[in-house]
Amino acid sequence: MLLRSEVKQAQERTLELFARAGIVLTAEEQSSIEVAGFGLGNLEEQGLELITYVNTDRYCAKELVLFPGQTCPEHLHPSVNGEPGKMETFRCRWGSVYLYVEGEATNQIQAVAPVQSKDSYTVYHEIILNPGEQYTIPPGTKHWFQGGLEGAVVSEFSSTSRDELDIFTDKAIVRIPIIIEDKENE
Amino acid sequence: MLLRSEVKQAQERTLELFARAGIVLTAEEQSSIEVAGFGLGNLEEQGLELITYVNTDRYCAKELVLFPGQTCPEHLHPSVNGEPGKMETFRCRWGSVYLYVEGEATNQIQAVAPVQSKDSYTVYHEIILNPGEQYTIPPGTKHWFQGGLEGAVVSEFSSTSRDELDIFTDKAIVRIPIIIEDKENE
Repeated sequence: MLLRSEVKQAQERTLELFARAGIVLTAEEQSSIEVAGFGLGNLEEQGLELITYVNTDRYCAKELVLFPGQTCPEHLHPSVNGEPGKMETFRCRWGSVYLYVEGEATNQIQAVAPVQSKDSYTVYHEIILNPGEQYTIPPGTKHWFQGGLEGAVVSEFSSTSRDELDIFTDKAIVRIPIIIEDKENE
Repeated sequence: MLLRSEVKQAQERTLELFARAGIVLTAEEQSSIEVAGFGLGNLEEQGLELITYVNTDRYCAKELVLFPGQTCPEHLHPSVNGEPGKMETFRCRWGSVYLYVEGEATNQIQAVAPVQSKDSYTVYHEIILNPGEQYTIPPGTKHWFQGGLEGAVVSEFSSTSRDELDIFTDKAIVRIPIIIEDKENE
């Protein structure tokens, strides 16, 4: 869970990165940026900020933000009612992102997997995305990703998104955020 | 049909607008920007420039460019093999776009429909999109759109794209571009 103040701070930082990337949001979108801490208690280390532009029964589009070194934990998108799992294309718009998928492990990867959760990071085939570069992750493929030195702004184009069904390697993870109010006078 | 030189010039102009919008393309993408003149012989008046980032059997994402006052002619996306027609979300990234769809006609619209082709513009429900604003066009809905005073850069998120099946109100239109080489010494 996250404190309301942590969420607000992360939203402000996300807006700064969007501004640097030239991404414009409406006022309503700005106030509804999702801050995902995955229930792990250390947003700077493992977390993700995002805005969902559209999510229909046919397609979905989001803008993702990773702070420098921030990691979205390893997960996959399972099939749903006989439909293949979510397929997604990551397109880097600004900064850089280190992406890891199933396949032959890359020697000397750029990212550093979060130390406390190392056992929950099992795929190490590296794809580095700089602005204008993109990669499509097939359905059912384990993947994780980390913001580069300046962080990253990444457009995600995909089939329908059902975040609540994502399967994380780390069983301690809670995908849907729980936010608690800061105590008064703190 | 378009001359190769017209295509090159339009690609250069498109790259300038992408640069202003902060949109980064790879070198390969830059050289493969699609210039659609719709077989009407006046690209400045009726035309569209675009790059398709990804088009799978589940979703599609493109970046569209309209020069100032340039119009993408009225069309709809029909159903295919029992699947509803293409659904698409336009998100304005830079400039402004005047979009017209079926529904109650708006009084005193901002766009000017191309004079020579006026009969081929039949829907006048206006939606104006500025940066950060978006609109989702339902399947099978007639629509056309025009770049505002500075032109427009628009992200299109959609279901699978099958441009060759689009139904244009103007039956003179040829969607798939025919490019002819410039004569020597011209």
